Formats: sequence, structure tokens, C-alpha cells
Amino acid sequence: MTSTFGGIEAGGTKFVCAVGSGPQDLERTTFPTTTPEETIARAIAFFRERAPLRALGIASFGPVDLDPRSETYGYITSTPKAGWANTDISGMVGRALGVQVRLDTDVNAAALAESQWGSARGLDDVVYLTVGTGIGGGALAGGRLVHGLVHPEMGHMRVPRDRYADTYPGVCPYHGDCLEGLASGPAIEQRWGTRAENLPADHLAWRLEARYLAAGVVNLVCTLSPRRVIMGGGVMEQAHLFPLIREEVATALNGYVALPEIGPPALGKDTGVLGAIALAMVG
Amino acid sequence: MTSTFGGIEAGGTKFVCAVGSGPQDLERTTFPTTTPEETIARAIAFFRERAPLRALGIASFGPVDLDPRSETYGYITSTPKAGWANTDISGMVGRALGVQVRLDTDVNAAALAESQWGSARGLDDVVYLTVGTGIGGGALAGGRLVHGLVHPEMGHMRVPRDRYADTYPGVCPYHGDCLEGLASGPAIEQRWGTRAENLPADHLAWRLEARYLAAGVVNLVCTLSPRRVIMGGGVMEQAHLFPLIREEVATALNGYVALPEIGPPALGKDTGVLGAIALAMVG
Repeated sequence: MTSTFGGIEAGGTKFVCAVGSGPQDLERTTFPTTTPEETIARAIAFFRERAPLRALGIASFGPVDLDPRSETYGYITSTPKAGWANTDISGMVGRALGVQVRLDTDVNAAALAESQWGSARGLDDVVYLTVGTGIGGGALAGGRLVHGLVHPEMGHMRVPRDRYADTYPGVCPYHGDCLEGLASGPAIEQRWGTRAENLPADHLAWRLEARYLAAGVVNLVCTLSPRRVIMGGGVMEQAHLFPLIREEVATALNGYVALPEIGPPALGKDTGVLGAIALAMVG
Repeated sequence: MTSTFGGIEAGGTKFVCAVGSGPQDLERTTFPTTTPEETIARAIAFFRERAPLRALGIASFGPVDLDPRSETYGYITSTPKAGWANTDISGMVGRALGVQVRLDTDVNAAALAESQWGSARGLDDVVYLTVGTGIGGGALAGGRLVHGLVHPEMGHMRVPRDRYADTYPGVCPYHGDCLEGLASGPAIEQRWGTRAENLPADHLAWRLEARYLAAGVVNLVCTLSPRRVIMGGGVMEQAHLFPLIREEVATALNGYVALPEIGPPALGKDTGVLGAIALAMVG
């Protein structure tokens, strides 16, 4: 039997497909996300040339249906992305390749990859938070990915804010000033009138950003009690945010519970597709 | 082999001990919580008369150490309750009775009991929130109780507030205006100058209370994605809170994700000790 696994990082702007069994033997390709038919056909063609696969994982943008009892299990469901709503990505890929497929959210897969090979190796209780165009989060609790009724949507948590000190109304089209509405990349850009990377490290913007993100981390500590919170995504490339966030989390929790480690992912740009490979491997 | 399980609901003011295998055959006793030595000896005496037990569960006030790799596994740890800090409750009971003991938080055990016999029967993703003297929460994710680095401390989440509309600073000695600080029974009493049960159902207090509790529920939806949120405790005996909370949760989530059911526990005053029995049964 082959020992090669397949993985698809299905993103809103690009697909990354890879075969392998970890960071050491990854063979990958990348192409833009166009229509579901065209994009999924390209993925299938990549894996056909490398068949047989033992199993295949898909780490997808959401929302996705993760309930095995549902009729749309394995689908990308109500996404606003044109053409992609109600796409049976798992079925299309699985039937074409005759392989077992396991789908999960991109952020759940990233949490799994980091716990297998990255900064959370060996930890069973891990949160992966991405802070970029949006804010999303995935989690392992007791070694298992958190699903539930839908799946975590950590970016849409509500956090304290002082509307008088920060009058920016928030960018989330659903909630205005949820965490994503206040602290995503677009929120920083709209609030300050320039992209995040143009703001100097000593700008007031970063203290405010750290405070909002820390409130999100505090709420994750109070609900999931993770051992490590991994923070990735474009905004977190501003590495000076990490000490600010750690300081704000410690101040906010005020010694009440033990603090998790807070740090960046270790797998870099491969976190997503390695997450898909990890999904295939854990079956 | 006997098929009787033992359960201890170890509370800050009283202990409830029971043997049985569910709501149908519960034999119980209740006594006040005094010193650890005296209280635990009374529990041991109750179970000795009913030995042998197949296993014993303890649903305890916290914080407790749930990490099997820890030296203080099974202990009540840093509680402010006089005399009870660093009490090896699991070891004391287990050694005296020669029985396997499983300890968890009272709120995790309550979530488990409700999923076994109560309002969340058959559900794998459940949150149990108690709103009374404090606010605490437990959770089942994918059928397993959430532990992590410590265990959930849902009452200490941060939620949005308008400090200009509600100038009450909050009652939590650690965090001031965390969820417990704003919405526990003592917070209602201090803010309005009278106990919650004295406030009429159309008092402004309840809309504010529902809004804070709904923000907590929203954050639980965004992190754990439960199918049902069970809300118990003294404050939730004001049943008119439920429709207000459901309305506020729906408004806040604004159609972004599917809503969990929100309702009271079905097991009433036995939820705690049945949780302890359930801990023993799932092993």
C-alpha cells in the first residue's frame, strides 16, 4: 500500500495541493481559485498523476458542513464567494480519485498541523488564530478538532471596547464591532487611513490592536483552556505585537488562571497544506 | 460485579452523596461542607455502607487539577475556601474505599448529566452555564469534557459593555467587569440595591442582564459551537430571562451562524450529583 497522503489547502484566492507525509517530503503546486469546476479539476489532475493516495485531506475556507449525519456533509455551504456556495468539494474529489476524503476548516487544519509538526508539537489543547483580511480560529480540545453545531467562528466573538476612546464602528458586515470588525487588517486600515504595515511599531494603533486581540485570547482561555495559542496571518507578521498581547492577556487575567503560551506558527506558509495532509493522516 | 456507582457533588456549602446508575434509582444524602477531614469522612462512611461500588465520580467546586500527568492530579487546588486548598479529595476517597475515582468540575459534570439523561440527551456538543453567586461553565465537545491547561472558566470571559450607560464597576475581585462581575447574582444585587428576585419582570435590570448573558452565549457559540446551551443556577430561576436571552443572541449573531438551543436544565437539583454518577459511569 502506498504511504502517500494528499492535501488541498482550498483558499479563497488560491489552492495549494500537495502529496507527502509531513514537512520533510512535501511536493506541492499552487494555482488561483477560479470556478469550482475548473479549480477542482486542476486539483484532481495533480493527484491523478501521483496516485494512488492513501487518503486525502481538504483544509477549506468556510463555512463548511462537518456533520457526518448531514446531507451536505463535506460541502462548502453558504459562502459569499461567487459560484462556490453549496459545493460538494469532498464528494467531487473523492469520487474522481476513489479515495477517502476528510474535510475541515483551514484554521482547524492549521491547529492540527502545528500540533503534529510545529510550535504545539505533542499538545492536545491548542488554538490557532489567524489575523489577516478576516479573523478565524480553529481548536484542538483533548486532541480532537472542535466542530459542534457548525464549527468555531472565533473572529466573531464580542469583546469589550470603549466607544468613546475608539469611535471606529467596525468593519464586519454582520456584526460591526465583533473581534474581526475591530482588529482585522481591513479594520486597522480603515481606522487609521493606512495599511497596517505602514504604521510604526510605536504607533498607538498597536496597543489598541493588542488589547482587542488579547480580549479575544482571554475569552479563548476562559472557554477552551488551551496550552498554546498560535497566532498567524498577515497582521501577526508584525512580530512586535506578541509581547504586547502577552502583556495585555496577563494583565486582563490578573493571575486567576494559568496562562497559555502565545506565539507564531512554526510551519510558515506550509501550515495550511500540511494541515490538509494531517487531516488525511489522522483519518 | 456490582453495578452501583457512587457520586459526590462537592459544593462549597454542602456535599451531596449518592449511589445509583441514573435518575431512576438514586439514593442520596446531603450534609454541610465543614473541614475537608470531617466532610470527606462523612462521605466515605456513606459509601462504605453501600460498598462495593463499581466506580465513583466527584463533581467538585474548583479549581481542580484534571491533568493526569500532574503530581496534584485529582486535587482541589488553589481555592480561597478556608482549609480546602490543596486537598487530595480523589486520593482520600479512592484509597479509603478502594475504588476508581474520576474528578471533574461541577459544571462539566452537570453538562455530562444533562447529555446523558436531561435536556441535551444524545448531544455531543453541549455547554452548561450556571448563573448564581458566581458564573461558571462546563462543556462537552465531540462527546468529551473540555479540560485543557486548566479547565473552562466561562464566567471570566470579557463582554462588551457601555460604561456610560451602565456605570456599575463589576463585582469580580479579579477582573471587575468580566461576565461574572457584571451578571452574577451579587452583581445584580449591588447594581440595583435589591436582590434579583425582588426586581419585577419588566424592570430594566433584566434586559441588561439578558444582554450580558447573551454576549457570553455568543462567545461560546463562536468558540465551542454547542448544539445546546443549558443555563441553570439561582438567577436563571427567573424564567422570563430565557426569551430575552434568545432574542439578544439572535440579534447579536445576525444570521451569521446557526443558533444553539438555549434552555434550562431538565434534571433540577439532582443535576450535580447525577453529573458525579455520570463521571463514574463513563470512567
